[in-house]
Amino acid sequence: MALIVQKYGGTSVGDAERIKAVADRIIARIKGGDRLVVVVSAMGQTTDELIALAAEMTDEPEAREMDLLLSTGEIVTSTLLAMALKHSGQPALALSGAQAGIGTDQVYGRARILKLDPARVVRELDAGAVVIVAGFQGLTEEMEIATLGRGGSDTTAVALAVSLKAERCEIYTDVDGVYTADPRICPEASKLSEIGYEEMLELSTWGARVMHNRAIELAAVYGVPVYVSSSFNDEPGTLIHGGVAMEKANKVMGIAHDEDVARITVRGVPDRPGIAAHIFEPLGEGGISVDTIVQNASVERLTDLTFTVSRSQLDEAMAIIKPIGEEIKAGEVMADTHLAKVSLVGAGMTSGPGYAGRMFRTLFEAKINIELITTSEIRITCLIDEKDVPAAVKALHRAFELADAA
Amino acid sequence: MALIVQKYGGTSVGDAERIKAVADRIIARIKGGDRLVVVVSAMGQTTDELIALAAEMTDEPEAREMDLLLSTGEIVTSTLLAMALKHSGQPALALSGAQAGIGTDQVYGRARILKLDPARVVRELDAGAVVIVAGFQGLTEEMEIATLGRGGSDTTAVALAVSLKAERCEIYTDVDGVYTADPRICPEASKLSEIGYEEMLELSTWGARVMHNRAIELAAVYGVPVYVSSSFNDEPGTLIHGGVAMEKANKVMGIAHDEDVARITVRGVPDRPGIAAHIFEPLGEGGISVDTIVQNASVERLTDLTFTVSRSQLDEAMAIIKPIGEEIKAGEVMADTHLAKVSLVGAGMTSGPGYAGRMFRTLFEAKINIELITTSEIRITCLIDEKDVPAAVKALHRAFELADAA
Repeated sequence: MALIVQKYGGTSVGDAERIKAVADRIIARIKGGDRLVVVVSAMGQTTDELIALAAEMTDEPEAREMDLLLSTGEIVTSTLLAMALKHSGQPALALSGAQAGIGTDQVYGRARILKLDPARVVRELDAGAVVIVAGFQGLTEEMEIATLGRGGSDTTAVALAVSLKAERCEIYTDVDGVYTADPRICPEASKLSEIGYEEMLELSTWGARVMHNRAIELAAVYGVPVYVSSSFNDEPGTLIHGGVAMEKANKVMGIAHDEDVARITVRGVPDRPGIAAHIFEPLGEGGISVDTIVQNASVERLTDLTFTVSRSQLDEAMAIIKPIGEEIKAGEVMADTHLAKVSLVGAGMTSGPGYAGRMFRTLFEAKINIELITTSEIRITCLIDEKDVPAAVKALHRAFELADAA
Repeated sequence: MALIVQKYGGTSVGDAERIKAVADRIIARIKGGDRLVVVVSAMGQTTDELIALAAEMTDEPEAREMDLLLSTGEIVTSTLLAMALKHSGQPALALSGAQAGIGTDQVYGRARILKLDPARVVRELDAGAVVIVAGFQGLTEEMEIATLGRGGSDTTAVALAVSLKAERCEIYTDVDGVYTADPRICPEASKLSEIGYEEMLELSTWGARVMHNRAIELAAVYGVPVYVSSSFNDEPGTLIHGGVAMEKANKVMGIAHDEDVARITVRGVPDRPGIAAHIFEPLGEGGISVDTIVQNASVERLTDLTFTVSRSQLDEAMAIIKPIGEEIKAGEVMADTHLAKVSLVGAGMTSGPGYAGRMFRTLFEAKINIELITTSEIRITCLIDEKDVPAAVKALHRAFELADAA
């Protein structure tokens, strides 16, 4: 009798019929002998509708009230699913995040889970119930409701799996697994039957549609296997777990791409100790996630500093960086948003020869210009023009023979 | 600086525009120097929509899940109103019933408030905020969400007024006060500027549209003045308070009517001690509210027992009473639903002569047959055919010169 934590996303519980279909899936699993804790998102467009209502009130809703408002969406789904299960004779119980013992910090809108007391969940499981938990939310020590931000319900599910020592966490969504590339731009992309946590994190820029990084990171830390599959069919999905990739013959697992890239270049930066900290510390304090950083070789004690941020943070980043540029007497500060990233992802790539060279040659032969290159343990990334992304992904997918990778 | 508890009903917060209009009303009051705690209902049709969703899941939703589901409606309104206030520069804070310190028993669907810890509300008021409380709900000792049933938000408002020792409780709704009769069937009905608690309770069968009995009873017990008015205009409303009616020259305050009447008659009941208890105790245990009870004079040690219940409880009542009838070897048990009550309401009526006689004569002259008569300290009630209700109300309103009563 394995204990499984399942999570059903917004489209999987999009309307009354879908919720009943999810109830049927749960009952089939229970009959198979498993015990289930089920985390649910808000129904389909509910969250967007609540945000629109808030927008009618004010341009800048306070995060505390926004969280209290948005938390209702997941509670609604949880109660409806519990009702559908009980209607079919399956004991079930809906719990809000607070009732499920999920304690968070007070950073509204993107709270972190600080503690999880599973006593109530365990008690209800022991009593034979399927426990339905409203995802995306928790209770602070001050009795405030806080939400976990993007991918919050995934995080709730993984955290419950960790806390309950569940056998695995199953994420059901409208995407049926993890592919070797985004199937929308690379039709030959094949579904992976398994993938390691780190590679999943690298693939997740488009994979965020599948599952949010934060939840994968949590699963990686505690070694919880995560199975991603569709709630709309019974096709096998992808198992994300540890210790997979190293044993794979083909070291390249997939091609990731990310169009949410803005590049900032500070020209003529005086090349002296501490100058990088002087620039990047204020960005960090301003909540800006800086990605790739490249510093050119210094010419006459002046260098050009280039880095990337997400497009949504470009304006904020420029507002911080421009005064600093003037202060340190640097030259022009420039921004552009026409670039995108294409990455080769796979553990063990750096230990195998020729991956980088083959990547650059493939892009060259496809007449795609490389603006910037960075690498990590399990990734080689090229910045290219965003209009070239589909051609680049397709060419790389073919060059590394990923169509049969799964 | 008076402390006032206001309550805005579902139509008063029916959409985004209405919520903003309520925010404007609140700000005007704050500028006038008052401190406000504001209780809100769910927006317009929200509760009905949630009930419809539940009905798609199951015919018999469990009360616990239903309460958790329905409680979200009031939370949504409270957050939106707080946002609208803050947008206009008015500090405000939305609290769920649980956060506002409202503790209830665990009778889902019609929970009673057991305790109210106003510490958080007081703290936020002292910090200068308008405190918005989601009505209709509270937290049980087991951390469950329970709702207060019909009129629940009124009860929340009065309970907060009691707990906070507020100067008064203001109920804003789509009805602009308490009238001498239901204006829908008696166009001459006039609005009362004030009325006593007990008379309000007697008038409340149609007055339930204005405010629920339970909240009035709570206000009466603690002597909290309740002001009922419209949120759609600035017309003066009705103040419900103690010690009013006795001093009024015209002892009749209004004409109440109630069409939610079903009559049950048990024929040939053996007239022996304890027989009434034998019949009515099981009804009470079954949650049936028995209203008027009439026992005819005994003939040959057999009597007829007649009583009324609300129509919604008729089937339940018959299911309980029929086996008892057989058990005590009574005759036929009959039910009919064509009757209605018309009542003359006013404190001091019983001490003044001729009210009953004038009532019966008025109905006689209007050719309306009286099926049953009951009286209380402040009420004379006749059961009549329901088709005669409009004529009876109009005739009595005229006979007791209520058009100018206010």
